Amino acid sequence: MIDFARMLGNVRERAPLVHNITNYVTINDCANILLACGASPIMTDDPEEVEEITAISDALVINLGTLHQYTVPGMFRAGKRANELGHPVVLDPVGAGASHLRTDAALRLLDEVRFAAIRGNASEIRALTQGAAAERGVDANEGDTSRTDLAAAAAAALAAKTGAVVAVTGVTDVIADGARSCLVSNGHPMMRRVTGTGCMLSALTAAFAAANPGEAFEAVCAAVAAMGVCGEIAHARLGAQDGSGAMRSYLLDAVSSLTARELERDARYEMR
Amino acid sequence: MIDFARMLGNVRERAPLVHNITNYVTINDCANILLACGASPIMTDDPEEVEEITAISDALVINLGTLHQYTVPGMFRAGKRANELGHPVVLDPVGAGASHLRTDAALRLLDEVRFAAIRGNASEIRALTQGAAAERGVDANEGDTSRTDLAAAAAAALAAKTGAVVAVTGVTDVIADGARSCLVSNGHPMMRRVTGTGCMLSALTAAFAAANPGEAFEAVCAAVAAMGVCGEIAHARLGAQDGSGAMRSYLLDAVSSLTARELERDARYEMR
Amino acid sequence: MIDFARMLGNVRERAPLVHNITNYVTINDCANILLACGASPIMTDDPEEVEEITAISDALVINLGTLHQYTVPGMFRAGKRANELGHPVVLDPVGAGASHLRTDAALRLLDEVRFAAIRGNASEIRALTQGAAAERGVDANEGDTSRTDLAAAAAAALAAKTGAVVAVTGVTDVIADGARSCLVSNGHPMMRRVTGTGCMLSALTAAFAAANPGEAFEAVCAAVAAMGVCGEIAHARLGAQDGSGAMRSYLLDAVSSLTARELERDARYEMR
Repeated sequence: MIDFARMLGNVRERAPLVHNITNYVTINDCANILLACGASPIMTDDPEEVEEITAISDALVINLGTLHQYTVPGMFRAGKRANELGHPVVLDPVGAGASHLRTDAALRLLDEVRFAAIRGNASEIRALTQGAAAERGVDANEGDTSRTDLAAAAAAALAAKTGAVVAVTGVTDVIADGARSCLVSNGHPMMRRVTGTGCMLSALTAAFAAANPGEAFEAVCAAVAAMGVCGEIAHARLGAQDGSGAMRSYLLDAVSSLTARELERDARYEMR
Repeated sequence: MIDFARMLGNVRERAPLVHNITNYVTINDCANILLACGASPIMTDDPEEVEEITAISDALVINLGTLHQYTVPGMFRAGKRANELGHPVVLDPVGAGASHLRTDAALRLLDEVRFAAIRGNASEIRALTQGAAAERGVDANEGDTSRTDLAAAAAAALAAKTGAVVAVTGVTDVIADGARSCLVSNGHPMMRRVTGTGCMLSALTAAFAAANPGEAFEAVCAAVAAMGVCGEIAHARLGAQDGSGAMRSYLLDAVSSLTARELERDARYEMR
Repeated sequence: MIDFARMLGNVRERAPLVHNITNYVTINDCANILLACGASPIMTDDPEEVEEITAISDALVINLGTLHQYTVPGMFRAGKRANELGHPVVLDPVGAGASHLRTDAALRLLDEVRFAAIRGNASEIRALTQGAAAERGVDANEGDTSRTDLAAAAAAALAAKTGAVVAVTGVTDVIADGARSCLVSNGHPMMRRVTGTGCMLSALTAAFAAANPGEAFEAVCAAVAAMGVCGEIAHARLGAQDGSGAMRSYLLDAVSSLTARELERDARYEMR
């Protein structure tokens, strides 16, 4: 059993500062979800200052969405500095497999930076285990996300290769480290109608990892379960006229209001 | 008569992937409205990867808001690649007329890329027909938007010059191709109190054009009418304490919930 | 007594166009709050076009969040152009003290551009008065914000050094010019759980300064009070399931609905 309640409690109590080098589509959502969970965000991607910002932070997220050649060197500099300082680093390989720029950046980052956690959809994670692969955009395609077994295999393979905890999110989420795996079945398909739920989860993951040192696997499982439970809470609130606008706002509401007890009670997971 | 219901139905059914090279003010809103209408977004503007991303997409939007010299070359590369592949390309000339950088980029794009559709306000569209012109910011000024006849003339002129379907949005929206024009009188002034409604409509336009190949004029009319109808639905929901925050959220809700029947029933338009 | 009602009324009536060179986390929120208060936003940071855009605007905001080396030269060019034209320029030194890039940019801007107003938290303002100083992220730390007297001293010192009206926001907000100071005690801690409330206030400040020429001190006080009153209105609306998502939306609602009478009635301030 994983003590989800304690994991979330530590985030709220320790209020980690999370440095995000991230995309411009969901950068505001990532900042807001970090504030909602009790952490603090700092977003900066200029290569000139990322090391200083990483040094005053408790964790680092490297997210490859809207990747710019200009900011890639800063990802390496920040990642290495965070490694030196022992801060957890989370990789969100948005769109890996969809372009050479992204796939190459992701693979090179895996070579040079030690990640505490990697979170992506099945296509992205497979692109990292298999090298470049065709992918339809940044959403995993339907066929992939329903194939939990493939996802589990990819997660375990990437975890073995990198030493990171790997989370593959989809209809069922799979979290694996070299030894264990956990299937989380929280969440709601409506979350896929809101941009940035994956990016937001990666940011949450960094906050959970920073607040729970030495328990990266458990922390990632707790972050994934928390996001899923909040998606369910948000969906349950939707009224007759509500749609994706309300879903987005309710999701933030749910993260800011989620109690340790609710997370413990509503998390649905299975260890393997 | 335009079969609006079929146009929207095709977007929901075919779920086109829309590549956006767009501004950073409304990039999140554009991603969310594409998800809301049933399409999928992918946003990237680095010149190194735009051609690959365009190649896996079904349509391209080039939006000149927050224009950077750095990303301009990618607009040409992506636009030409999309032309080769036969994907519809939509231009949103945000702020054309307001700076040389934007006006020049827009005019050069018109020379080198074939657009399926161009959507802007009256000032922006006039800047493209007349070359550079003074403009007050990115909002059309009041005097312009009420002058439907001027807008119709500008739309027809730009359509004739470029071969694109041209949509000039304002109090009354005008859509023109070389032969026909359509006036749409849906929408609500409160939409102007939310940033990005123009950008969002341009993204919608690309989704409608991609899902309805060979019917660009009808598709653009349907996108414009859909946005207007959703603005009315959103406005009708506003309660006593609601303002522009709610308007923004309700607009996304409306797009995600809009049925083909509602669009057919509530679209108010006139062919000329 | 400050005539808050007239200050807000002038914003609504004169609808100033505010040019923002700002960060990518909260750029959408800044555009939306400007629209909500009755002003118009234009956001652009490419050095090639900022002078032209500043020239057609009524005020300029320079915000250092997500600072890029690439855009720094444009801050100087736009700032100097605005000075020549007599437009009020507002500095938001986000993260000053947290990195050399930001602190240096802020200090050099203070040397070369004349600011009508500077708005930051206590750590940021102290970094500008003392030169570089250690800071924990972009949020003021708790100890600082409660120390109103320190904030007042820093505000007065920076005002004396620069000639700007300086606003230090925290639990109690302090506004100072060379001669007077004003303490505003509106607002709610929940505002700190929404990213961008500081950036939004800086944008509001520019709108108020532009709409009330020759009354910079009063205009800044009115903007600060308006933001605080709106935070209270937003908080008062929160229902049992609402959290930071609703808070964000209600804040925009409140700004768009705020009447001059409400601002006059609910502003809590003290002149010193």
